[in-house]
Amino acid sequence: MTITIAVFERPLDQGAGLARDMRVRWALEEVGQPYEVRLVPWEKFKEDAHLARNPFGQIPTYEEGDLVLFESGAIVLHIAQRFPGLLPTDADARARAIMWLFAALNTVEPPIVDRDVVEYFEDGRSWQNERFAMVDERIRGRLNQLSASMGDSEWLDGAFSAADIIMVHVLRRLEGTDILQEYPNLTAYVARATARPAYKRAFAAQLAVFTGRDL
Amino acid sequence: MTITIAVFERPLDQGAGLARDMRVRWALEEVGQPYEVRLVPWEKFKEDAHLARNPFGQIPTYEEGDLVLFESGAIVLHIAQRFPGLLPTDADARARAIMWLFAALNTVEPPIVDRDVVEYFEDGRSWQNERFAMVDERIRGRLNQLSASMGDSEWLDGAFSAADIIMVHVLRRLEGTDILQEYPNLTAYVARATARPAYKRAFAAQLAVFTGRDL
Repeated sequence: MTITIAVFERPLDQGAGLARDMRVRWALEEVGQPYEVRLVPWEKFKEDAHLARNPFGQIPTYEEGDLVLFESGAIVLHIAQRFPGLLPTDADARARAIMWLFAALNTVEPPIVDRDVVEYFEDGRSWQNERFAMVDERIRGRLNQLSASMGDSEWLDGAFSAADIIMVHVLRRLEGTDILQEYPNLTAYVARATARPAYKRAFAAQLAVFTGRDL
Repeated sequence: MTITIAVFERPLDQGAGLARDMRVRWALEEVGQPYEVRLVPWEKFKEDAHLARNPFGQIPTYEEGDLVLFESGAIVLHIAQRFPGLLPTDADARARAIMWLFAALNTVEPPIVDRDVVEYFEDGRSWQNERFAMVDERIRGRLNQLSASMGDSEWLDGAFSAADIIMVHVLRRLEGTDILQEYPNLTAYVARATARPAYKRAFAAQLAVFTGRDL
């Protein structure tokens, strides 16, 4: 059954792979599933055709037959439950991998997204620098805990899983800052993940949307 | 196998049921599973015994035999996948219910939590009122979309599911404001959910921790 994902026609990050469709592309590459792409123009994101697929007007969406999903975390989990390769088969290990996927989205990502809120939506406000300091302290609090928990482990919990896709993509959002470099084990973790062939294929595919070149 | 959850010994909300253990208690009540509670004193949250169960020093945790989980979203999903009653059996409907659980946690909750950040951590700052206005606009944006999507539906997507537990708990966090009252269908949705016997049992159980009374 054909899988189709919706992505921005003109990615705001100029193909840096920070938009959330990157998570879905990467997951599909890891499990070896081909997919098609629907390019949604920026001005159409809040219109009915897209809202019918995602009431919150976000990307990506995922379509497979009659099933239409939004929320990148839900889509990556769906792919991981539908196709082998991204979740352990042992029940307890599987539950822990899913737990780490939630931890990436709900505990590590929020202060990192908040940093972008400060950068873009509070630009020029008198308090911007004070807010940056407060948000960066929250980010470091989470990274301290994550770094201590991971130690020298290769991946979050045993074998590479869907949780690593989300966590690495969340951490990559700090690339424009110096924060991640304070954590050598997390920097190495991101480097290890982004060296995977599936990551590279996904990255090239989303970059091609920006450059307009065929792969 | 005995299920044990860790909760605050002295809930900060004085038993209003806003701490995230409420989500897990409610889910366990819905599926009819008894559980035990480990009370963790406030000063022990960042110490090793608790960090061994949750590296981010949060509540709740969930223990079932050798399995130890953190992240309320992951725990509620685990309960829903382990015991019948909180997810549809049809594969597509099940994927959509899980999608809504992610939407509650990753799209609706973040600005609502941010409101608490402004209220407690930016109290007394010169910019607090301006930030309240910005955050409330983001909250209303999400509630507008959620309200439009739900219409007069009883639950988020078909039958009551794990997603409704999370979404209703997220929306309840707005109780100290007037915002939710602007959305009659969402107010009715919360009232419908909190009238469920399983919700009432869970609420009474967490309140009893605060009052110190046996149920």
